[in-house]
Amino acid sequence: MSAARLKWYGWGREGEGMSDDERAFVLGRYHEKFGRDAFDTLATPSLQDLALPAPRVVPPSALSAYCSVERYDRAAHTYGKSYPDYVRAMLGQFDCAPDVVAYPRNEAEIAAVMDWAGEVGASLAPFGGGSSVCGGVEHRRDERRKGAVTIDLRQLSKVLQVDATSRAALIQGGAFGPALEQQLKPHGLTLRHFPQSFEYSTLGGWIATRSGGHFASLYTHIDDLVESLRVVTPSGIAETRRLPGSGAGPSPDRMFVGSEGILGVISQAWMRLQPKPIHRAGASLRFPTFFAAARAVRAIAQAGLYPANCRILDPHEAYNTGAGDGSAAIMVLAFESGDHPLDAWMKRALECGADHGGIVETGGADAHRDGAAGLWRNAFIRMPYAREFLTPAGLIVDTFETSITWERFEPFHDAIKTATEQAILEATGVKGEVTCRFTHIYPDGPAPYFSFHALGRHGALLQQWQAIKNAASDALIAAGGTITHHHAVGRDHRPWYDRQRPELFAAALRAVKGALDPRGVMNPGVLIDP
Amino acid sequence: MSAARLKWYGWGREGEGMSDDERAFVLGRYHEKFGRDAFDTLATPSLQDLALPAPRVVPPSALSAYCSVERYDRAAHTYGKSYPDYVRAMLGQFDCAPDVVAYPRNEAEIAAVMDWAGEVGASLAPFGGGSSVCGGVEHRRDERRKGAVTIDLRQLSKVLQVDATSRAALIQGGAFGPALEQQLKPHGLTLRHFPQSFEYSTLGGWIATRSGGHFASLYTHIDDLVESLRVVTPSGIAETRRLPGSGAGPSPDRMFVGSEGILGVISQAWMRLQPKPIHRAGASLRFPTFFAAARAVRAIAQAGLYPANCRILDPHEAYNTGAGDGSAAIMVLAFESGDHPLDAWMKRALECGADHGGIVETGGADAHRDGAAGLWRNAFIRMPYAREFLTPAGLIVDTFETSITWERFEPFHDAIKTATEQAILEATGVKGEVTCRFTHIYPDGPAPYFSFHALGRHGALLQQWQAIKNAASDALIAAGGTITHHHAVGRDHRPWYDRQRPELFAAALRAVKGALDPRGVMNPGVLIDP
Repeated sequence: MSAARLKWYGWGREGEGMSDDERAFVLGRYHEKFGRDAFDTLATPSLQDLALPAPRVVPPSALSAYCSVERYDRAAHTYGKSYPDYVRAMLGQFDCAPDVVAYPRNEAEIAAVMDWAGEVGASLAPFGGGSSVCGGVEHRRDERRKGAVTIDLRQLSKVLQVDATSRAALIQGGAFGPALEQQLKPHGLTLRHFPQSFEYSTLGGWIATRSGGHFASLYTHIDDLVESLRVVTPSGIAETRRLPGSGAGPSPDRMFVGSEGILGVISQAWMRLQPKPIHRAGASLRFPTFFAAARAVRAIAQAGLYPANCRILDPHEAYNTGAGDGSAAIMVLAFESGDHPLDAWMKRALECGADHGGIVETGGADAHRDGAAGLWRNAFIRMPYAREFLTPAGLIVDTFETSITWERFEPFHDAIKTATEQAILEATGVKGEVTCRFTHIYPDGPAPYFSFHALGRHGALLQQWQAIKNAASDALIAAGGTITHHHAVGRDHRPWYDRQRPELFAAALRAVKGALDPRGVMNPGVLIDP
Repeated sequence: MSAARLKWYGWGREGEGMSDDERAFVLGRYHEKFGRDAFDTLATPSLQDLALPAPRVVPPSALSAYCSVERYDRAAHTYGKSYPDYVRAMLGQFDCAPDVVAYPRNEAEIAAVMDWAGEVGASLAPFGGGSSVCGGVEHRRDERRKGAVTIDLRQLSKVLQVDATSRAALIQGGAFGPALEQQLKPHGLTLRHFPQSFEYSTLGGWIATRSGGHFASLYTHIDDLVESLRVVTPSGIAETRRLPGSGAGPSPDRMFVGSEGILGVISQAWMRLQPKPIHRAGASLRFPTFFAAARAVRAIAQAGLYPANCRILDPHEAYNTGAGDGSAAIMVLAFESGDHPLDAWMKRALECGADHGGIVETGGADAHRDGAAGLWRNAFIRMPYAREFLTPAGLIVDTFETSITWERFEPFHDAIKTATEQAILEATGVKGEVTCRFTHIYPDGPAPYFSFHALGRHGALLQQWQAIKNAASDALIAAGGTITHHHAVGRDHRPWYDRQRPELFAAALRAVKGALDPRGVMNPGVLIDP
């Protein structure tokens, strides 16, 4: 574990953040966008000033060795990293802080915490890196619950076993991205799962939330990387077999993948690995319009080439991240292999690009680090640090993501963008901006990722954000999309998730929860109502 | 629908079967294997001679337009196509014949049949092509059930909509393989899902049983080809959204995929399609041993090349199917694309083969139809017709399949083969043969497919088969495999499925069934006990 603590407010660890130059670049874009040279900026409270509610439950002595009721632990586990989380933290609203934070060191201690939470009638929220952007790690005050306990899995951080022959590893659920990659490195292997939150999220969190990973196609979803699982539930431990494939009934793994902590805690998993890439081919392309770029993406996705990266940014998105001058859409294209040169793959992908008006800007083996691709890549990794100063500046900056089949994509995009722009204007009285990129691509459709930028008003930020969020979410559900492609449901997406999923599936999920968690301890209110 | 009826005993339609030459080839191999020039051969009964039990329930007049209580319909829906199915049919054992066979024409009629079955306390078994080889379409006599109704989906045979942009089609659950491909053909698209049963199985059956398809890697499993589903359950209709990908809670589709008819009837699905392949590269390779071939397969599977075919046959399997002379293991390797030439792919795969001692026998764009590949392909498609004359000859010929991670494969293979050979000797007193091939390959392991050949004794065939099946299944569960990779669980695999799946998953599945099928109408005893 690193010496520095995770921030209780902000992204990453204490002492980390954007440099003055990065900050100036990001704020500069907003000064320009809203025609201001400064923003009305709030101070954020200090940890000591926070008014935390008195703990309602206290861990028994058998658990006290790995439980904390300290101010820092409770504050740092109150929220995830969503926009409303930042606003509430900035305003010192910590009513829903957990009473206790447990740091179990093994499955027996996980089970002991679960049992105790069940006995005292507390809710129990699993917590990995705490980077949820949809209210997935938060307790809600509920009178039926006598307390709130958060179970932080960071002590389960080890790669327990590596099978180089089958390219798989047994990894504990609390392992953070960098730590698990560090342990795989001596074996020349990688999980190659790089969500934007990579540094501050865990294997168990990725599995529980169906994390998407960074790559554009093929083996990037955590769903496909899970070979087997071990889950501690309030009714005992479920362990699935290590199998490369199976047709024996519905997949038990797929029931736990995406279960968002309502059924139990993922204590460890055998994960499918890949060799470290040694061959690379990359290019950046300019396209006259975002839709032209999208048509090129469709051609590449349907060609069976499986690029590691095939992101497109609309002109404004490219401008905002520094990857373009705002006059063209940008495609960041890359292939990677641990086995073979990629010339044939790249050649064909570039032909698909050219067919739709794409012009190569940069190319070559290092193109993923150079030019637009490199600029965008850097912005992608650093961007989460911006929220901690944009929020006090009264800016409402957020993202949401979805997926849709190709034949509906163009009107879908326009409907979402228009609805969101209009909601920004109505909610804030100031014209905002909505931009779009693709994060993942499939033969049958893209995963569009929208960013929006609005100038809010202190005192009304939460309501303004909610109005925009509602309009965007209503539009994407009405137009046939999913409420989330890889951010998960949590609490923020519940109203739209409820409209998206078949009602009979909700009944099924409720029945499963009743069977595995009869006392309703685990994350009550997430995915389904208690 | 074809003019000829499906056989009530045997594979395919009345009038179809192996030619005299094919028959002579197949029987010749068995004469040779067991040192006999003839087998004690039983006659199979005629339809008119079958003693069917009197129907216990009669459909009400509202349902009579699409329900039958005719002798042919009841006999043709009593069994699937497993070895014990053939034996029992040959012996005229039709105690478990359904009382009624319904042929609903739409979802309302499916629901009406379900409601009626629930009201009269009958069990309801969905039936596609009836090609289950694991007891998946059979009723069991159970005193708690007042009747047995089979619901045959063949009237729901249409491709309802084709979306060429997203390469997807909305297809009814009762569409047989050839009929659905016929309807997709004018659009230049194909589902490209070719299980061995292709001609006599349906989309709904493939989805309900997690069918594997013919291709070796990547998009071949029906699980991955499902974009959305519509399922008629006793509690109503569940419909999922058409989405290329989603992270909104556990996948609802994956709960129904593999549910083997215990939750409802899959009435239609949006399926992901592919363009008709126009580029092909293929080769057959000889390897000194099966394990050398397996190591080459591992290299290819881990190289990220995704061959359409990468089957290996052990020397005896190659000999039995006419694909080899028995002195070497054979690899049938092929790449296919609707988009680009495959030279780079094939070149690298052949290097992997050569690294492990593989010698190319035939190669080129038509190699998938020539040489060992062509011979094997033909045998693969025709083989199901053999069981209808091998069974009356007292031969016990069956297959079983599994999957295992690479690091365990070699000892796993030997343990299964030895246990099965020994069980054959013990059960029949005559040395038999057990051969192996790979059907599907993954970066983390193969799906080995075993065939066994034993000389049984009339009067004891079922017991002898069961003893061999038990030994093989015990061995593969003990050695860490799955009881089925793509044949499904049905009734025959239940004892081992129960040992394989986590007990808490059984509890979850039971809870789901309770929620969707509260009267326990659908396939009671399949996957879980009522």
